[in-house]
Amino acid sequence: MGYFRQNIEAMQGYTPGFQPREPGFIKLNTNENPYPPSPRVIEAMRKACGEALRKYPDPMADAFRTKAAEVLGTRPERIMCGFGSDDVLSIAVRGFCGEGDPMAFPCPTYSLYEVLAQLQGARAVQVDFPEDFSLPPALAQVDTRLVLLSNPNAPSGTMIPRDEVERLAHAISGVLLVDEAYVDFAEWNCLDLTNTCANVIVARTLSKSYSLAGLRFGYAVAQQELIEGMTKVKDSYNVSGPAIAGATAAIADQDWLGRNVERIKATRAALIRGLEQLGCFCWPS
Amino acid sequence: MGYFRQNIEAMQGYTPGFQPREPGFIKLNTNENPYPPSPRVIEAMRKACGEALRKYPDPMADAFRTKAAEVLGTRPERIMCGFGSDDVLSIAVRGFCGEGDPMAFPCPTYSLYEVLAQLQGARAVQVDFPEDFSLPPALAQVDTRLVLLSNPNAPSGTMIPRDEVERLAHAISGVLLVDEAYVDFAEWNCLDLTNTCANVIVARTLSKSYSLAGLRFGYAVAQQELIEGMTKVKDSYNVSGPAIAGATAAIADQDWLGRNVERIKATRAALIRGLEQLGCFCWPS
Repeated sequence: MGYFRQNIEAMQGYTPGFQPREPGFIKLNTNENPYPPSPRVIEAMRKACGEALRKYPDPMADAFRTKAAEVLGTRPERIMCGFGSDDVLSIAVRGFCGEGDPMAFPCPTYSLYEVLAQLQGARAVQVDFPEDFSLPPALAQVDTRLVLLSNPNAPSGTMIPRDEVERLAHAISGVLLVDEAYVDFAEWNCLDLTNTCANVIVARTLSKSYSLAGLRFGYAVAQQELIEGMTKVKDSYNVSGPAIAGATAAIADQDWLGRNVERIKATRAALIRGLEQLGCFCWPS
Repeated sequence: MGYFRQNIEAMQGYTPGFQPREPGFIKLNTNENPYPPSPRVIEAMRKACGEALRKYPDPMADAFRTKAAEVLGTRPERIMCGFGSDDVLSIAVRGFCGEGDPMAFPCPTYSLYEVLAQLQGARAVQVDFPEDFSLPPALAQVDTRLVLLSNPNAPSGTMIPRDEVERLAHAISGVLLVDEAYVDFAEWNCLDLTNTCANVIVARTLSKSYSLAGLRFGYAVAQQELIEGMTKVKDSYNVSGPAIAGATAAIADQDWLGRNVERIKATRAALIRGLEQLGCFCWPS
């Protein structure tokens, strides 16, 4: 062949979780929510599926940004939308890391991080988690353009305390992206670090806690300078009209979110109890 | 600042066409279709906006690929979907051009091409169109990884004959991407070159002729090796569940497309006549 860049030729590519098309499976492999999304999301999306489709969507998805800023206690200018938080991750890697530039993340973690480094031709510095999945001190010592931290971490489900994340942000010279895809199921989050740290990006998705993996919607929160720079990198129209309508309805319906999260937490507790009764050892606990 | 790569810091970013939110405008600036999309698209999308949103979409959008292959007379393995053809363009630039690598296109043309080069840190080789907007011979002589050709060209509305595009494909050592965003309004297209030329990609969008700019859906047709490589570069879930449903219904409804295109062509002819009666000189004719 030879048409592609060498790093692309050499890599395997990301393998998405297997999606059986036949009924009769209980799927656990991509962490999809077993419960349906808020009825308000479906109503808003169906309404947006009409004549308006002939027009381009709002490039910045301001309806979502305005509502999300209100819910999160930040400003719309500090939010950028993406088609899933994977889009936010890709934008960050392309925005901060040139070819050969180092980007670091603790391992094992979300396998997409390494793939994004390969795609960009950046150098992935993978720092092993210690056995208790606490923050590896070496992460603060490598000189990188970008550190990615899945918090809670996938697949371990473990979490780094907010204060340690803050110390990491201060210790590094580059950007720290905290991937909070699963944060709604956790006890704390790092959103407020975006107020005090100029180099912190918090990435979130509607795929998990909002039961909207099929919508493709996520967002980044950071200080305005970072948001403006990442906005140059993103595709102008990276979220569709119906997706903006659905995402805005989703983030507005926090009562529904709270109930959905409690259901998942209860299911999680029941699963752990059941596994323990079968003699399984759940770790990290 | 200094967090972003130098090429990102230095660039302005793409400016999407102004979108007034108030009613009462006749918008011409982003070439949106004035007529609504097929009712079948809206029906299919509303149906897809339901409980299924909790699951990830099909990463390859096989429902669309199967139907599109049938309509276009090609194979599903020769099609890759994107969120608009802008996604296909971005994937091509990231897949074929490393930092400093040259990519060429005739000018003036779609302003995104230069922005994509800046984002990637690639070197944009801009070759002026001659006054009659015929193919500039110099385009075949520069040694580049990628040539982008908007055909019909935006904003001139002019078109390079298929045989000349084929000769260009044979003359260059890299990949030729023919951007056919407006091809449904033209007299010919270059789709069949993807059968005979291993280095040709045809990119299309549903934003214009299908009246679906708000859907964010486009696709690439090329030989399987190119599609497989570009699939590594694309985001795994780059099109949403409802978008796949809508796009599949859209490409299946070719009767509707034919009528929509004829309406636009009739409007175009009437506009030209009206302008000429006002003493305007329409060029290129």
